[in-house]
Amino acid sequence: MLIVQKFGGSSLANKNRVFNVAKKVVGQYKKGNDIVVVLSAQGDTTDNLIEKAKELSVNPSKRELDMLLATGEQQSVALMAIAIESLGCKVISLNGEQAGIKTTKEYNNSKIEEVQKNRIEEELGKGNIVIVTGFQGINSIGDITTLGRGGSDTTAVAIAGSLKADVCEIYTDVAGIYTADPRIVKNAKKINSIGYDDMLEFALSGATVLHNRAVEVARKNEIKLIVRSSFKNEEGTMIGDEKGREKNEVKYIATDKNVAKVTIVGLENKKKSIQVFYDELFENDINIENIKKSEERRGLVELSFIICTSALEDVVNILERKKDEIKYNKLNVEKNIAKLSVMGNKIIGNPKTDKKIYKVLDEIGGEGYVINRSKMKLSLIINENNVDAIANIVHDIFF
Amino acid sequence: MLIVQKFGGSSLANKNRVFNVAKKVVGQYKKGNDIVVVLSAQGDTTDNLIEKAKELSVNPSKRELDMLLATGEQQSVALMAIAIESLGCKVISLNGEQAGIKTTKEYNNSKIEEVQKNRIEEELGKGNIVIVTGFQGINSIGDITTLGRGGSDTTAVAIAGSLKADVCEIYTDVAGIYTADPRIVKNAKKINSIGYDDMLEFALSGATVLHNRAVEVARKNEIKLIVRSSFKNEEGTMIGDEKGREKNEVKYIATDKNVAKVTIVGLENKKKSIQVFYDELFENDINIENIKKSEERRGLVELSFIICTSALEDVVNILERKKDEIKYNKLNVEKNIAKLSVMGNKIIGNPKTDKKIYKVLDEIGGEGYVINRSKMKLSLIINENNVDAIANIVHDIFF
Repeated sequence: MLIVQKFGGSSLANKNRVFNVAKKVVGQYKKGNDIVVVLSAQGDTTDNLIEKAKELSVNPSKRELDMLLATGEQQSVALMAIAIESLGCKVISLNGEQAGIKTTKEYNNSKIEEVQKNRIEEELGKGNIVIVTGFQGINSIGDITTLGRGGSDTTAVAIAGSLKADVCEIYTDVAGIYTADPRIVKNAKKINSIGYDDMLEFALSGATVLHNRAVEVARKNEIKLIVRSSFKNEEGTMIGDEKGREKNEVKYIATDKNVAKVTIVGLENKKKSIQVFYDELFENDINIENIKKSEERRGLVELSFIICTSALEDVVNILERKKDEIKYNKLNVEKNIAKLSVMGNKIIGNPKTDKKIYKVLDEIGGEGYVINRSKMKLSLIINENNVDAIANIVHDIFF
Repeated sequence: MLIVQKFGGSSLANKNRVFNVAKKVVGQYKKGNDIVVVLSAQGDTTDNLIEKAKELSVNPSKRELDMLLATGEQQSVALMAIAIESLGCKVISLNGEQAGIKTTKEYNNSKIEEVQKNRIEEELGKGNIVIVTGFQGINSIGDITTLGRGGSDTTAVAIAGSLKADVCEIYTDVAGIYTADPRIVKNAKKINSIGYDDMLEFALSGATVLHNRAVEVARKNEIKLIVRSSFKNEEGTMIGDEKGREKNEVKYIATDKNVAKVTIVGLENKKKSIQVFYDELFENDINIENIKKSEERRGLVELSFIICTSALEDVVNILERKKDEIKYNKLNVEKNIAKLSVMGNKIIGNPKTDKKIYKVLDEIGGEGYVINRSKMKLSLIINENNVDAIANIVHDIFF
């Protein structure tokens, strides 16, 4: 078998954990498998490096940040190779460039365009366990790029796709995919298997266990993904094709605190002003949701939307830089909000579900909220401070 | 002017020092100079990384160590670029590969074969200050290599040679080249200028302020080198062509504690045994000195030599691996020794110098020692514990 295994930063946080992972890898290798291992940076390394950069500049350039952050994974892979050597196995570490991870041009949030697999295959052919840096690649001008938070998952899946691996295992600090985040919702249950589309919806709604881009790449290449614990030896969750399987009514509850609400106040209600803004969002690959335009008053409107906090700075920069063209009075940013999503089939038009939803709204009580419903998803925007408690209540109502 | 500036790890040890260097660089840039900056890893980064590797394996492979260590300089250059950006100047960081530093194949102690200057020149052409990782490069198979301790000096000089820079400035924690190490010898005096050959002899005798390979590359390319303080704004020492200058009798005192004595006991006195050993040394690029072969007794001899401690492990490995061919009874290793060198002209055959040397030997008194004299140098191998005190005495006798 050809197996791609990905281990996250908390699985590598200290010497003992590095050895723990090394032994897992060696165990699979000794069974006669070809193994490619994709690693994140150890523990808090990435956060510490960002902090160092921010000490020097309030707004470090994305190119230089990528140059800095990429060192975290390079340290991980070299240390892992050293640990595996000491267990007596053949091993080699490769950074993003050496592993042929070619990305788009932009920094901080780049996308993998291609995995040029020749070096990895050559090293596998020599009998090496191949350890590859996650989260990073190289663009067409030879600069180091990073793939954004959770990008190591994407690296693993992209390599698995390029090599046509039999399976891609994502090792993490939880034992699989749950009906809700088990760190928040105490009654959350582990799911044995889940389809690509459901997992994608789940990841996009704030489930942090798997990066949504990784799920997209897995679906496209039909890679069998398994999410399981780095620490416990138990069955995880299989993500794959779910065609023909029975679909449950409500499947998962997701919470996402990394959202903010931006309101553009006193915006000129002209097609051009708004178009300039949307064009900039598109060019910078920024998604906004829950977009609401108010009614016009004296030619002005309010435009509000929800955005991932990681993109907040970019959006504010765009709005300030293009103020002459977009034309508005002021910006309001609310960071103290969170999104709670209930996902499944038949969220709409199912009397049983409807009844439960009204019960949820009763529980939220007097607090302000915004509700969105689609065929697959109900989402609530509520105060961040209450979201954990409400997630527990909602989970109990539906499961 | 095109200026290459190199800053060592202690000049970059914390946020304030990084800014101190950034301001120096920006000052020269704003005068209209083209600037390439070569940096070491910050503070103790390299030592900390080595320690992390040694926690995982008693004998980590050199390839993986290089992969690990190279991250130290990459962090330095990215952080420096971020600091310089925040001062409002155009800047870009490049790692060894991006800067076109092509090295020989071996790891840990690789040599620069060529600096492919196109990317650096392109970035200078765009008005960027260019920040390059010292100490590292890339070999013909695309693996990261490092140049050994002090290798950042060599990187700076090699880049200066390739770009035909007007000057290469080595910023360090001392104010220049002294008649002896000022941290050890309290009456050491700063030298205003020194020739390439003298500097090379000095570096080879243990003067740590400048790497000997850097001096060789500077001599070959006739690069004007200046060694000066990162912290104080004072004139340093110029290293360049010294033809025609008056030569002093005794010029410098150097001490080197990083030496060890190896004795091969009961070595078969056959040309082949010894040749196998010398061939291995040559192939591994290891220099030994003060080689002494004893007289033969029952077909066996003792072979002893002095070696840099960094090469000690390699030599012991060779002797153990090739024991069948080299044929000897046992190895003795003495680490508690040091070398003290007195350098200058006319060390031999000058009555005034001879008299002073006898005075030195009087001072050493009953302790055991080995003396070597050449035309340019007198060296003593003595107990490591006494070498600092004796260096002070010897300096006072000669200066």
